[in-house]
Amino acid sequence: MTISEVGLRDGLQSISTIMPTEAKVEWIAREYEAGVREIEVGSFVSTALLPQMADTEAVIKAALNFPGLIVAVLVPNRRGCEAAIAAGAHKISLPLSVSETHSKKNLNRGHPAMLAEISACLDLVNAQPSHQKPHFEVGLATAFGCSIEGAVSAQQVYELAQQVVDRGVPEIGLSDTTGMGNPTQLEELVTGIWDRLGNQVLSSVHLHNTRGQGLANVLKAVELGITTIDSSLGGLGGCPYAPGASGNIVTEDLVFLLESMGYHTGIDLEKLLAARHAVAALLPSESWYGFTAEAGLPTGWVPTVPTND
Amino acid sequence: MTISEVGLRDGLQSISTIMPTEAKVEWIAREYEAGVREIEVGSFVSTALLPQMADTEAVIKAALNFPGLIVAVLVPNRRGCEAAIAAGAHKISLPLSVSETHSKKNLNRGHPAMLAEISACLDLVNAQPSHQKPHFEVGLATAFGCSIEGAVSAQQVYELAQQVVDRGVPEIGLSDTTGMGNPTQLEELVTGIWDRLGNQVLSSVHLHNTRGQGLANVLKAVELGITTIDSSLGGLGGCPYAPGASGNIVTEDLVFLLESMGYHTGIDLEKLLAARHAVAALLPSESWYGFTAEAGLPTGWVPTVPTND
Repeated sequence: MTISEVGLRDGLQSISTIMPTEAKVEWIAREYEAGVREIEVGSFVSTALLPQMADTEAVIKAALNFPGLIVAVLVPNRRGCEAAIAAGAHKISLPLSVSETHSKKNLNRGHPAMLAEISACLDLVNAQPSHQKPHFEVGLATAFGCSIEGAVSAQQVYELAQQVVDRGVPEIGLSDTTGMGNPTQLEELVTGIWDRLGNQVLSSVHLHNTRGQGLANVLKAVELGITTIDSSLGGLGGCPYAPGASGNIVTEDLVFLLESMGYHTGIDLEKLLAARHAVAALLPSESWYGFTAEAGLPTGWVPTVPTND
Repeated sequence: MTISEVGLRDGLQSISTIMPTEAKVEWIAREYEAGVREIEVGSFVSTALLPQMADTEAVIKAALNFPGLIVAVLVPNRRGCEAAIAAGAHKISLPLSVSETHSKKNLNRGHPAMLAEISACLDLVNAQPSHQKPHFEVGLATAFGCSIEGAVSAQQVYELAQQVVDRGVPEIGLSDTTGMGNPTQLEELVTGIWDRLGNQVLSSVHLHNTRGQGLANVLKAVELGITTIDSSLGGLGGCPYAPGASGNIVTEDLVFLLESMGYHTGIDLEKLLAARHAVAALLPSESWYGFTAEAGLPTGWVPTVPTND
């Protein structure tokens, strides 16, 4: 199982505090030490809109010094993809909202314009020499429902997924951007995509805990065979008490679930909890969240040994 | 699916505030109106130790006025069972801790003494005329682990369950008292008991959300065929920020999970959220918890219609 830490992107973009580059690198180092091997370190978006992400290039460069760490980054368009490739990111994700209303509001582009950006990104990626070629993934945002449009049908998801794959995108992800999803719906979408497009195109989900359903959805996903789960240290950007909270799944609680079920994450939960406290100290004005950190590990908990090293 | 509301017992016993009887009845009325049809309204325990429960007899009497409501009560021993029968409770639960250390600490009795109390209760229950005979259930506490002893083996659970059933107890429940459980363990315990003792002896679970695993465990339980889930309105007694929090599953989040998956609870979630706000106003000094209440219902949510009426 791969835990993909998204707090440095999804978390930091949700708060107004601007974390200094060296603090971001400290965050990466702490989670790396705990065994985390995939981190989305930032995004190449408008620095006027999201000044929290202005140092993404520098953070990528620093992150590349950790051996074996997959350095992921989010891009909204061709220009961002160009910057991500230039910086040397291993993995590039582009969000495509199934709800066209949300797409226009979020990225100011409808589906045809977004699909054109995706094709342009793909051309850039495919032009790289094979040993430097990053993974390129399109995340289907609002796949479980939209806070503007309401329900999003499975058919809408399948049709857009088909268009993305038809353009040659090797991998798509499913995102419950609005925290509206449930395990039945997740099963329908995952198996529906696998049936139509093959199992190899979908192996990751980005779930939110907005209505407390995050880990129930994770359970269904891993039982189906999904192998990469996004989450955020301390649920950053995900505190349910903050207005506009995105509700990210808490990395610590996710690791507790998977490790206690016998799945291997390669993450040492005690070290991860230590990382949480260290990073929280770097962002003292933010709300940190998570049940396992509050309750502590159970009596008799046997720590796992990271084998990712 | 039956949601068994335990906030009036498990919640109120965890806080120092003593809720007046009329406020408890208001709580029952609000949840009843939302469609809840099983409520554990209190416990017959030492009123010196738990003055919050001193009016349990009066609360039972009031609760019996709601047509179709199953009025449940917790008892620790024969004396409590006698009081529960006299008050006219429909359902009597007795907690038996699989960890004998916890049993001695919690109820001052080891397993042999507890089993003797259980047999005495059973005699009392069976002496009732059949139209007045309450359901009698033994809840296996600390079945997923003990905060004093640490791990509790499945074998310990099976052996104690066997002894309970051998004494003639018709129904047992599984309780994750300490919030240490995970879905793999839950599946092992549920199927292990069903294999050994038959499916009819176990249909309910009492899970905690101490480490955020509550709804993931619920998902596994309902998929296995468990039909009764305990939970607490607003997670009362379960706020993860309160010292010694028990971490009850939040009724509102549980109903969101089940209804959005297409399970029928008979509960109108909008009315339940209104009940939460009304009851919170009756207990202004307590922390109320829950993701669905914080985030609100999703855009386009179609309310269910209670059919329990």
